[in-house]
Amino acid sequence: MVLNSLGRQIPEIFAGKKQIPYSDPWSLQPNAERSTRAIRRINHNGSKLLGSLREAIIATGLKDGMTISTHHSLRNGDHLLNDLVKEIDALGLRDIKIASSSIHIVHAELIPYIRKGTITGLECGVNGLIGELISKGELDCPIIVRSHGGRARALITGEVPVDVAFLAAPCCDEYGNFNGYYGPSACGSLGYAMVDAQHAHKVVAVTDNLVPYPAIPVGIPQTVVDFVVQVPTLGDPKKIVSSTTRVTTDPIGLQIAKYAANVIECSGLMKNGFSFQTGTGGISLSVAEHVRNMMRKDKIKGSFGCGGITGYFVEMLEEGLFEALFDVQCFDLKAVESIGRNRGHQEITAGTYANPFNCGAVVNRLDCVIISATEIDVDFNVNVNTESNGYLLHNTGGHCDVAAGAKLSIVVAPSIRGRLPIVRDAVTTITTPGETVGVIVTERGIAVNDKFPDLKAELIKRRVPVKDIRELRDEIYAITGVPKPLQFEDKIVGLVEYRDGSIIDVIRQVAA
Amino acid sequence: MVLNSLGRQIPEIFAGKKQIPYSDPWSLQPNAERSTRAIRRINHNGSKLLGSLREAIIATGLKDGMTISTHHSLRNGDHLLNDLVKEIDALGLRDIKIASSSIHIVHAELIPYIRKGTITGLECGVNGLIGELISKGELDCPIIVRSHGGRARALITGEVPVDVAFLAAPCCDEYGNFNGYYGPSACGSLGYAMVDAQHAHKVVAVTDNLVPYPAIPVGIPQTVVDFVVQVPTLGDPKKIVSSTTRVTTDPIGLQIAKYAANVIECSGLMKNGFSFQTGTGGISLSVAEHVRNMMRKDKIKGSFGCGGITGYFVEMLEEGLFEALFDVQCFDLKAVESIGRNRGHQEITAGTYANPFNCGAVVNRLDCVIISATEIDVDFNVNVNTESNGYLLHNTGGHCDVAAGAKLSIVVAPSIRGRLPIVRDAVTTITTPGETVGVIVTERGIAVNDKFPDLKAELIKRRVPVKDIRELRDEIYAITGVPKPLQFEDKIVGLVEYRDGSIIDVIRQVAA
Repeated sequence: MVLNSLGRQIPEIFAGKKQIPYSDPWSLQPNAERSTRAIRRINHNGSKLLGSLREAIIATGLKDGMTISTHHSLRNGDHLLNDLVKEIDALGLRDIKIASSSIHIVHAELIPYIRKGTITGLECGVNGLIGELISKGELDCPIIVRSHGGRARALITGEVPVDVAFLAAPCCDEYGNFNGYYGPSACGSLGYAMVDAQHAHKVVAVTDNLVPYPAIPVGIPQTVVDFVVQVPTLGDPKKIVSSTTRVTTDPIGLQIAKYAANVIECSGLMKNGFSFQTGTGGISLSVAEHVRNMMRKDKIKGSFGCGGITGYFVEMLEEGLFEALFDVQCFDLKAVESIGRNRGHQEITAGTYANPFNCGAVVNRLDCVIISATEIDVDFNVNVNTESNGYLLHNTGGHCDVAAGAKLSIVVAPSIRGRLPIVRDAVTTITTPGETVGVIVTERGIAVNDKFPDLKAELIKRRVPVKDIRELRDEIYAITGVPKPLQFEDKIVGLVEYRDGSIIDVIRQVAA
Repeated sequence: MVLNSLGRQIPEIFAGKKQIPYSDPWSLQPNAERSTRAIRRINHNGSKLLGSLREAIIATGLKDGMTISTHHSLRNGDHLLNDLVKEIDALGLRDIKIASSSIHIVHAELIPYIRKGTITGLECGVNGLIGELISKGELDCPIIVRSHGGRARALITGEVPVDVAFLAAPCCDEYGNFNGYYGPSACGSLGYAMVDAQHAHKVVAVTDNLVPYPAIPVGIPQTVVDFVVQVPTLGDPKKIVSSTTRVTTDPIGLQIAKYAANVIECSGLMKNGFSFQTGTGGISLSVAEHVRNMMRKDKIKGSFGCGGITGYFVEMLEEGLFEALFDVQCFDLKAVESIGRNRGHQEITAGTYANPFNCGAVVNRLDCVIISATEIDVDFNVNVNTESNGYLLHNTGGHCDVAAGAKLSIVVAPSIRGRLPIVRDAVTTITTPGETVGVIVTERGIAVNDKFPDLKAELIKRRVPVKDIRELRDEIYAITGVPKPLQFEDKIVGLVEYRDGSIIDVIRQVAA
């Protein structure tokens, strides 16, 4: 075990691989060439269609011990990964690793296949029950949680070699061109899948909407697709879009959003060329509403919005408040409908969005981002992976990527959740280092990182309730009491990888 | 020296590299992994702008013996390659190879720099004087002529490692996103440049139209661009578009076009889903005109048009005759204007267009293509590189790529040009093997490859003047006389590479 710079104990070896302890957000240099793959030659002009997922698994030559991937743009509506693992199991394959871009609650169906050894490793974060069971030691399956940018990096450097990518293809032709814009499973951007399409050793497009050649516009081209499989359905379209896409009506949320808007106003960033990202939560959308109003009022012409795109951002694009939307993932149907129509609505790969190891990702150009937290510590470190019960319940998403990239990252969170303090001495798990976090906004006040003295002064001048983060913690502890330390076993069940590939924290088994 | 399957003597080593003799169009299998390159990390969010081409050359670390590239989408209007070589020379660099996607007449300015050893090799075909001087032995500069698909293959496999690509960027932001759609040097598709952007070891975007971040739509992304350089002009916009973009009015040309249309009519290919490519010559455009009328008359709903795109194809797209245009290169301003506006007008890379070594290029899906010839032999082999004087005057373009890919390739050419017979016993240089050529159309009659007996029968049935190719040759020789064999020196000054990387022919020094 070695200590990383944030004081977390990191194993030198995990899941058979040497691990690098996290040092800082910036200095780790890539020590790799871009991953390569065997070049194939297809002379024929005929269909690449195979009759079933099973046939495709056989055709790709998938073997015991190999790694597969899917993309998560269908989110909780995705059936493909479940169907795929069932077929892999039926074929008697074992010891398969999953390196999907994310695993959702719907994928709890994989649990029996983890128990029986069909699946023996997760090279990706999870949302929901699988993470909980792993945390409890009830599922034995080493897990490495990666951010969106970190996952792109790991595929591009070859650190995670994906043997076969099975990519949900909402609008696909028989020769393998596909896009996410049209069809019953339309998900809009295929930003995550694009990385796999370029870097997996074999690529299968799986579609429930086979269209005449060519599927236009071509998001992922025929030249990288080995096989096409038609299935009755890729999933449940109603669950493809995110649920929380409405502005909050909760008074605490509204207060937080208002303070966050004050922070943006005081930051000096709100001027022509402004760029901005929020997630989908009700508070984030409420901040976006404030931002829209500020931009309208001051006639600000923004540069771009990015990340997972919602209808809110589409409206801002159409209103001319932004020149462009960089879209790695559409969060709602309005975004899906826009990406097929608005020229400024630009589909980007997860690598272009957030990979730290290239000539500069889009997150580098962000002025301001609104991010969330399950816990925040007094050094501004943020946890989004585990809850205060120690269970791994959430994927990182782009959290640490945008925090590192943006000029100002603003964490919005209620001070107390389920009677537990959100600001505390130490977070259960560090997802995002405090060095990349600018401001913590709660309904009880705002804590500003010492890296932003001017912003702090301006907020104080405008009588926004700025508090020292320790003061904020004490105020919250006075209500909730000091949280009892969680009891963990020694066993490390997972790692949280920082975007550069170093290990920022571990997930330990929670004591029974 | 070894004989290839077409009876041409091929050197085993040329320009220091082992060469593979051509065997057939289909069987050579890739023996390579996709080329890789060092991964870089750029944390900053600032400008990548450098002050001049010279600064950029220095910043990229270009050294003696290295290889540079540019793209040819500005065609004869391009000033960048000339300016670049002048700066490289001024910096005292020597022994630089050029691996641009094509070299045009305007680049005769490079001749002094070849003479003095600044440039010592051409890993690309040339149009014009440079080729003539090389053919005459007056310029000592080994040249390897590649097709568009073959060049993409050579960069993707790493066979031609481009150290630095200097890419003309008609609409570019300071962080390196660019497209070809807008600005004084707008050229539309950046299909050739996209290959270099992915595979060159360093990438410089050179622009005369710096726009606020982000340059939308993003054709080539910031993530692959190391530096951006602003120059007063990339070239002469008037010469960016091709000259011959009008239907022929010459009676011989009109007759050829009519026969070619007869061939298409008799081929059985003209039905829903029809896909088609022509070049820009007056005869080709006249064939396109016939095709358009046939499609209208029979209410044919075509699939796609591809290749270099002209306004003709744009009109057919807008009329609904094609679902899509696959555009690797815009040939006129109407195409440039369309690609920024028509959703079905799809920009594709040269690799997607024609690389034989991937999961299937667009050319594989072509039904019918109209191609040209400087000479044709009685085995249907076609020359487009040299003229009958033996001078290397033309690049291959996509000639052998589309011939291999399309179900039916139709060569259109006058039977006699400048008193010389076009159909002859042997061509000076084999660009495209006869095995991939379906029909030869001249104003004196049509020769059909034995591979298409049904087509031949149908043409005869419809009283189209089908002739045996030897009969056609004799008829032409009766007018022109039998051409005197050209006298060559032993010295091989260049190679003609087939699309798969094997050597289909050599260019020998013409005897003085």
